Amino acid sequence: AGLEKHIVGCCSVDFPVAAVLPAGGSGERTGLSTPKQFCTFLNRPLISYTIQTFERVPWIQSIVVVVAKESLDLMMDIVHRFHHTKVLVVHGGSTRHRSIFNGVCALSKREDGTALVKPKVVIIHDAVRPFVEEDFLLKITMAAKEQGAAGAIRPLVSTVIAATSEGYLDHSLERTKYKASEMPQGFLYDVIYKAYLSCSESDFEFGTECLHLVLRYCGTNAKLIEGPPTLWKVTYKRDLAAAESIVKGTLSESACVVAGGSKRAAELARVLQKSMGVLGMEVDVISDLIGDNAKSLSSKWNFILISMNIHSLSEVEKTLSMLEDADRALLHPVVIIWVHLKSLEDDSSVNEERAAMMDLASGAKLRNVLVYGIQLHHSKEAQLWERSVERLTEISSALIRDRTPALIGQLLQA
Amino acid sequence: AGLEKHIVGCCSVDFPVAAVLPAGGSGERTGLSTPKQFCTFLNRPLISYTIQTFERVPWIQSIVVVVAKESLDLMMDIVHRFHHTKVLVVHGGSTRHRSIFNGVCALSKREDGTALVKPKVVIIHDAVRPFVEEDFLLKITMAAKEQGAAGAIRPLVSTVIAATSEGYLDHSLERTKYKASEMPQGFLYDVIYKAYLSCSESDFEFGTECLHLVLRYCGTNAKLIEGPPTLWKVTYKRDLAAAESIVKGTLSESACVVAGGSKRAAELARVLQKSMGVLGMEVDVISDLIGDNAKSLSSKWNFILISMNIHSLSEVEKTLSMLEDADRALLHPVVIIWVHLKSLEDDSSVNEERAAMMDLASGAKLRNVLVYGIQLHHSKEAQLWERSVERLTEISSALIRDRTPALIGQLLQA
Ligand SMILES: [Mg+2]
Ligand SMILES: [Mg+2]
Repeated sequence: AGLEKHIVGCCSVDFPVAAVLPAGGSGERTGLSTPKQFCTFLNRPLISYTIQTFERVPWIQSIVVVVAKESLDLMMDIVHRFHHTKVLVVHGGSTRHRSIFNGVCALSKREDGTALVKPKVVIIHDAVRPFVEEDFLLKITMAAKEQGAAGAIRPLVSTVIAATSEGYLDHSLERTKYKASEMPQGFLYDVIYKAYLSCSESDFEFGTECLHLVLRYCGTNAKLIEGPPTLWKVTYKRDLAAAESIVKGTLSESACVVAGGSKRAAELARVLQKSMGVLGMEVDVISDLIGDNAKSLSSKWNFILISMNIHSLSEVEKTLSMLEDADRALLHPVVIIWVHLKSLEDDSSVNEERAAMMDLASGAKLRNVLVYGIQLHHSKEAQLWERSVERLTEISSALIRDRTPALIGQLLQA
Repeated sequence: AGLEKHIVGCCSVDFPVAAVLPAGGSGERTGLSTPKQFCTFLNRPLISYTIQTFERVPWIQSIVVVVAKESLDLMMDIVHRFHHTKVLVVHGGSTRHRSIFNGVCALSKREDGTALVKPKVVIIHDAVRPFVEEDFLLKITMAAKEQGAAGAIRPLVSTVIAATSEGYLDHSLERTKYKASEMPQGFLYDVIYKAYLSCSESDFEFGTECLHLVLRYCGTNAKLIEGPPTLWKVTYKRDLAAAESIVKGTLSESACVVAGGSKRAAELARVLQKSMGVLGMEVDVISDLIGDNAKSLSSKWNFILISMNIHSLSEVEKTLSMLEDADRALLHPVVIIWVHLKSLEDDSSVNEERAAMMDLASGAKLRNVLVYGIQLHHSKEAQLWERSVERLTEISSALIRDRTPALIGQLLQA
């Protein structure tokens, strides 16, 4: 489905497109000291999620991120750390509109003043709306190409009312006639550029809407397109929790169980596939990560390795180095759960293994891979066994869902 | 501070006040099959959080919850399960206004038709805005008493625009002149009652604003009061994650470390107090939960019991039964972390203890208490010891913050 989307986009967009992400806000409303675009969850600042969203769209050529002067170094570091390749960082102006204009200008002039191939369409999007989808960006882009300007709208969540100067209700607006103006917005480059060249100091200082500027100074009536609720803006601290939960939800949609060669392990893998399926997680079972199976390394965020042998942490090590070769954990933490299926006879002490496990996990964490262990006692009593499998399912789901760094290296008991 | 608030409220509110919570919504927008007011986090449905918010305000006498007919049993069960005592459940009408009117009527008539002491002021609030604060309810109530009506407003988050019938931008509203109308709203009983008696079928069917009805039918201009961002409405699935994170944040603000009589345990408790303080958690250290110290049982949501003896799960059991006596875990899950400080000499196997721990924790979970274990190895090497204490801090914080049921009964290694 992702590939199809790319193809549709690449066929229709036969002209250069760029994006400008104003990211100069101070984020007072989050109640945090860090501006919200730089707040981090799952080891990555919010703005990097938004950049990634644009970077993976093949028909968007470049992304200008506009930041406050004091954030330039931080932003360059983020671009470097997360290997963002389409990004140009420029510093902002004293207001939102001045910042956007700086971003727009950066698309047609190099710093030394020489000209660049300027884009046909510019998408303007908030750095703090990380979940915009490719097909919606396509709609905005195509409408901007045809109409000169296009903007996302959403139905009003609350009734809008006008207050008297004394703070009493004057009247309420009819909700159906009005919409909330959101981001992204798209513009023909020449239209937005001209609007900014023509607009007044007061527009630069107090204006809130690019759509309004192009209407006023270019006579361009923007096409309004209703967007999905995922366009919402991370504004408060609670929105960061919501964003984190959305990303965690996506990362825990599926897992890959590697069962090895043993028949018992393969059986357990099948049972786990079914029980985690009930909890809504799609689980693939494979015997190893070699050959064709290695594809999982670049498509899954979660690996459950089943082992019959307590001395087989080497499997985890191997998986770790394959993940590293695939640069898999660059953008999101990867989870590896090592399940030790303990046989009836095996009463080996695990103290040594525990220490090895903790060392391994501590090292992996530095590479953004979270390694957890679960020990499962084989039992001939059906009820005990079922209870163990149930616990294995619950613990695995929780570890994958929560991705808690504090619990790495533990050997949990199912 | 909480007590002070109550006192201020009780002094100013010398008249009867009731609340109506319309809770008949179908919650389509969450993308969940359960209406959002009945969605559960930390073992409790959202609506119970909202009810609790009103129930703990001493100057609010009764709370009418209006639900769809098909939710009556579910709602009664929630009232029963969480010991809500001020609540009257009535069934709603076919629209929001009809439901609110049903709720308002229920405040002046018993089901058998005989009269009740009707309240002077009625607060109307959405069941899906659980975090409204007492001082804001007081402001709304006092303004309603004086002006006849009062409503919460918030600044507009997005620019509001008018679209042409073809879907193009017509004009945008000047943001500063308009406000978003939110909940709670307060009314003199006689004013809201009269407005509903006088209003048209079309108002009942399509109207959105009680404020508008009292203006139109009673000539009452509502006083508008800007509320805090916490008034926001749980609308989407992501808002449930945000609400859960807010509650979890509140529950993990502080913890109580019970150190027992040993000097080593007391030292560890002090270190933990400091290190968890750095992470933002306020930690009290006490030696036991007896006498005056027992107050912690009714004020803390998290207990860390430090023990030198692996065979001392009885302390956990004792704490459990004290919590049960205090009905402590009725509204929120309580966390008990049992920390076993293992001496150098102690190389006892923990397998037996593990099983006992799991049994204990499984039983406690049924009573909404989450029991976790952490084993800490005393070391004479300063570096090893520091690393262990650091891990103890991280694990304890994560367990308290996440409250993951799947991990109860584990004996984690610090
Ligand atoms: Mg704008
Ligand atoms: Mg209303």
